[in-house]
Amino acid sequence: MDAVSRIERALAAAVDRADLRGSPPRLAEAMRYAVFPRGARIRPRLCLAVAHACGDDNPALADAAAASIELLHCASLVHDDLPCFDDADTRRGKPSLHRAFGEPLAVLAGDALIVLAFQAVADAAGATPARLPAVIATVAGSVGVPHGIVAGQAWECEENVDLSVYQREKTGALFAAATIAGAAACGFEHAPWRALGELLGEAYQVADDLRDAVSDPDEIGKPVGQDAAHGRPNAVAAFGLDGAVRRLETLAGLAVASIPPCPRAGDLRALILMEARRLLPHQLAARAA
Amino acid sequence: MDAVSRIERALAAAVDRADLRGSPPRLAEAMRYAVFPRGARIRPRLCLAVAHACGDDNPALADAAAASIELLHCASLVHDDLPCFDDADTRRGKPSLHRAFGEPLAVLAGDALIVLAFQAVADAAGATPARLPAVIATVAGSVGVPHGIVAGQAWECEENVDLSVYQREKTGALFAAATIAGAAACGFEHAPWRALGELLGEAYQVADDLRDAVSDPDEIGKPVGQDAAHGRPNAVAAFGLDGAVRRLETLAGLAVASIPPCPRAGDLRALILMEARRLLPHQLAARAA
Repeated sequence: MDAVSRIERALAAAVDRADLRGSPPRLAEAMRYAVFPRGARIRPRLCLAVAHACGDDNPALADAAAASIELLHCASLVHDDLPCFDDADTRRGKPSLHRAFGEPLAVLAGDALIVLAFQAVADAAGATPARLPAVIATVAGSVGVPHGIVAGQAWECEENVDLSVYQREKTGALFAAATIAGAAACGFEHAPWRALGELLGEAYQVADDLRDAVSDPDEIGKPVGQDAAHGRPNAVAAFGLDGAVRRLETLAGLAVASIPPCPRAGDLRALILMEARRLLPHQLAARAA
Repeated sequence: MDAVSRIERALAAAVDRADLRGSPPRLAEAMRYAVFPRGARIRPRLCLAVAHACGDDNPALADAAAASIELLHCASLVHDDLPCFDDADTRRGKPSLHRAFGEPLAVLAGDALIVLAFQAVADAAGATPARLPAVIATVAGSVGVPHGIVAGQAWECEENVDLSVYQREKTGALFAAATIAGAAACGFEHAPWRALGELLGEAYQVADDLRDAVSDPDEIGKPVGQDAAHGRPNAVAAFGLDGAVRRLETLAGLAVASIPPCPRAGDLRALILMEARRLLPHQLAARAA
């Protein structure tokens, strides 16, 4: 089964368990709305790619780890969209969850998705319970405090903030969790996998900055030119267009070089280089090396 | 060390780890505000009482399980107090968290406390990782969907609700988690411990109904007579004052009878009967058997 199918199956299984007889039906519906239809699933795909590279000897745990990271990502989008933060009307081309279900269910669906992320992993510990502490600690660390996405979001509430640090944390934490949890699910020492996730998180942020600078809004489904309009720190302002393209290539190269020893390192290297090319807006393909 | 000291130490250690260099300082402060100064800590005390009864052979894990249940309780209070739910001005005699820190930090502090609950348990797995899946599953089940406190709260957003079921779920879930997690932390089969938690949760609800009916508002630190004023289903309306007192005694008796075989069952029996007497408002002491 390919990675995307494994991820969708694991996510469906997780959401289904919240939609049993006895569940509040609108809450279950809201949770499903937050998770489907799918976005790019870039973080769980990265998690499974690392698990594959590490031998994938407990696919159920790897699938659950990947699903848990996506559930936490979805939860953070639901809470970030709330009126007290971004007050977003739309998300992934449909009304934001609080617009569709109301604010109370948006708060609760986010909470429930966070809990579900941990349930999914605990349920899948199965034959390898000794791996669970590392997977739970990784996943929790990526979303909590001091360096997870909740902490990242909380910097918006502080007076003294380094905005570029905040953006890197908000994006980087779940990418690092994806690589570390993929390795931990296979019983590999997980710390050496952090650099790969952080580098790819930064590459993703650069690609996002490039898309914001050059893409057609219809093509990417959201407004463009927002970084420049709001004077936000971004890779295009810092390095110029060509410099940002080179930065993306450099980060991909560093990511590949950082891959720790593992049984299928070649597959992972190839995948990362292919994804890095895919991340580059096609308008800029001619500028790539 | 007595149970209360163990609980406060475990909670302080958990909150401290969210208050490190690099944490957003106001978020860390908000999390601390939500957890301290202490309330009755009735759920974590129950958790440690069960762990004691089961031999308490891994006190670090039992302490973490108890702390995690209290962290989840605190998180639920913070989110329940939000303007989109109860819009509460005060909590435990001080301004509610969103009044003190603003709504964004109230959402994020609740999220972060949920995550912290799972981190605390994973960190303490230590020498007995095989116990972790059951502890995580128990704790997650008590707060998630279909039968946890988030699900309980979500019934407020449904049109067709059995309000008494909803109240029982909202109160009962964390009590059941307390007994089950206490046993699971000691490696005991945990399912047989559910009945004890559910019976004590129901006893606590009856005691709460009695306090609402007969107590002095200054004495219990919140308004009284709310159940009657709002026509809410409650034990005093259902059974009368004497009937509700007898119901509390019956539930305590059933709870004691439900204790599964364990090394120190006698201590647990004595504690439960003492707590049941303590829960009874003193105005009603003369009515007890």
